[in-house]
Amino acid sequence: MSNCTFIFRNRPEILSASSAVGTKEGQGPMKEWFDSISEDDTFGQKTWEKAESYMLKMAVEDAITKAGKTRDEVDVMLSGDLLNQIMSSSFMARDMQIPFIGLYGACSTMTESLMLAGVLTDGGYCCTAVGCASSHFCTAERQFRLPLEHAHQKPPSAQSTVTGAGAMVVSKADIDKKCAKPDVYRVKHCRGNRVVITAATVGRVFDPGIRDSNEMGAAMAPAAVDLILRHLNGTGRSFDDYDLIITGDLGVTGKAVAADILKQAGVTQEQIDGKLEDCGTLIYDESSGCKSGGSGCGCSASIFSGYIYKQMKRGVFRRVLIISTGAMLSTISPFQGESIPGIAHGVELESEGAL
Amino acid sequence: MSNCTFIFRNRPEILSASSAVGTKEGQGPMKEWFDSISEDDTFGQKTWEKAESYMLKMAVEDAITKAGKTRDEVDVMLSGDLLNQIMSSSFMARDMQIPFIGLYGACSTMTESLMLAGVLTDGGYCCTAVGCASSHFCTAERQFRLPLEHAHQKPPSAQSTVTGAGAMVVSKADIDKKCAKPDVYRVKHCRGNRVVITAATVGRVFDPGIRDSNEMGAAMAPAAVDLILRHLNGTGRSFDDYDLIITGDLGVTGKAVAADILKQAGVTQEQIDGKLEDCGTLIYDESSGCKSGGSGCGCSASIFSGYIYKQMKRGVFRRVLIISTGAMLSTISPFQGESIPGIAHGVELESEGAL
Repeated sequence: MSNCTFIFRNRPEILSASSAVGTKEGQGPMKEWFDSISEDDTFGQKTWEKAESYMLKMAVEDAITKAGKTRDEVDVMLSGDLLNQIMSSSFMARDMQIPFIGLYGACSTMTESLMLAGVLTDGGYCCTAVGCASSHFCTAERQFRLPLEHAHQKPPSAQSTVTGAGAMVVSKADIDKKCAKPDVYRVKHCRGNRVVITAATVGRVFDPGIRDSNEMGAAMAPAAVDLILRHLNGTGRSFDDYDLIITGDLGVTGKAVAADILKQAGVTQEQIDGKLEDCGTLIYDESSGCKSGGSGCGCSASIFSGYIYKQMKRGVFRRVLIISTGAMLSTISPFQGESIPGIAHGVELESEGAL
Repeated sequence: MSNCTFIFRNRPEILSASSAVGTKEGQGPMKEWFDSISEDDTFGQKTWEKAESYMLKMAVEDAITKAGKTRDEVDVMLSGDLLNQIMSSSFMARDMQIPFIGLYGACSTMTESLMLAGVLTDGGYCCTAVGCASSHFCTAERQFRLPLEHAHQKPPSAQSTVTGAGAMVVSKADIDKKCAKPDVYRVKHCRGNRVVITAATVGRVFDPGIRDSNEMGAAMAPAAVDLILRHLNGTGRSFDDYDLIITGDLGVTGKAVAADILKQAGVTQEQIDGKLEDCGTLIYDESSGCKSGGSGCGCSASIFSGYIYKQMKRGVFRRVLIISTGAMLSTISPFQGESIPGIAHGVELESEGAL
């Protein structure tokens, strides 16, 4: 099978990133890294779906502004979410009036959109692309699980869908002068290192046969490990070449499963320690009551666009492999006897020099 | 706003295409062009969703075989469908074990997947990519409309979802020798002209404010015209430079609306006559009872992969703009007071010389 690793020879830059999250996420350990925290998970909208779409739009608009651009200067936007017919993204794209490529990758969408934004700019197909994704606790619970009013109790392995969105503006600014406004955007908005996309690997749908929707982390962990190993193979790098390898939403249980599988593949505990992280385990603390951490497209989208991007701007992380992880079940597939297959897409980022 | 037109300088070739359809489509005027017609819309599966997934897999496998390749030689597959969480595509991708990029573009998915397959091969990110899409009458009716058992009657403007799938194998065979097996695949499977992808334009979500789900054609027509005009602008071509400009599933009503809007934009009736076509109006005849024609991702997917591709192999059409058209409503957006926005993605194909 093909590795399907893309090498970005022109190293397109992530000009800016923005994250928007809900109340609970804004009270967690990552709160200082988010660009926008809402005091009200309705975001002033009449329905949860409209709230999610509005939150996503906030992140996209803020990222475009931070890049020193207007929406007319963005050539294409790639986005997806968990809702049926990607309702949050579709209506956001209607409002934004930017050419739109709709994606569905379950919770793997943030790296799926970023990877394709990288391809389109690196390949010279357009100057500026936005990659984004979102999820909302209340829309996801209603659609995939049980009505919130039931106050349903979850087992410790179950994760909680993150109310959050992330957006990144990708450009080949330094290659094509006509696209670039370096003096404007750097000085005004983006002090710090350049964060560039150097490679990406497309995930494959991997089915470990898990049927319990409270075990999503375990369902996705093999796909995440498969992605890591194929990415290392495709780039010729080793685990040690990265400051951080961070998965999207495996959660506490899934992260442990992924570490176990990596060790079976020959990665040592020393290599894993402090290097393998998971957004799902970072976003909430004990007080949240989310025993196994967060999930949803918005989990990795908000942490990659918040914490990871900003730490790379500062040069704290020099090379990071970000991997959003998704469970490709549908709302009806479990009732038809199907297990829960996982997928994971990976994007390699580097922090380049100081300005 | 950006045109967002991609020019494919390496002119990647569509090595092969395959279409699979249901019984009713196989009795219509396009029957001679389809690669596979099922006598049973269950395709031997226990649920409609599994049937759709199986049909899509048939088209993908047949296209890969026709290209003289094995699934291990395909680097990446891009697919989507109308089902919640693109269930048909996800489970097909699990079975195929090819790196997978999931898309959601409603009925615009075939050109969305083909456009990105073109980018990935033209840009040198991979050698071989498959773009595909599907829809099934019974899964779509159950999800979007009413249970089949109701025998619900539709108004004349309503279209019927096509049971069909299409898949195309795209390669930069002639550029990179290591990817090519010209003697094998051409002689064995693909006699005729080379069909290459020369350009593509990304659609934007366009909302004419229509709220009646029996008027999908009218809801999508403005997006289709917007796409045509932006594509002409982006490529510097005129309407007359094409042998055919064919939309996905506007149907009888939507096609008439599109022609009216084109005329307002300065295109003459003579230019439109015989040049503007719509897959939705081609797939069924009077006896089908589908007054306004077909719809669904499978409508344009099966006709582009069947009729259009084969006629281009024969050199009957030299340059064609294929445009799949989608309505970006969700199963719940109309209940939240939202109108039905449309989108359309366009891919320009050329038939090159004789072998």
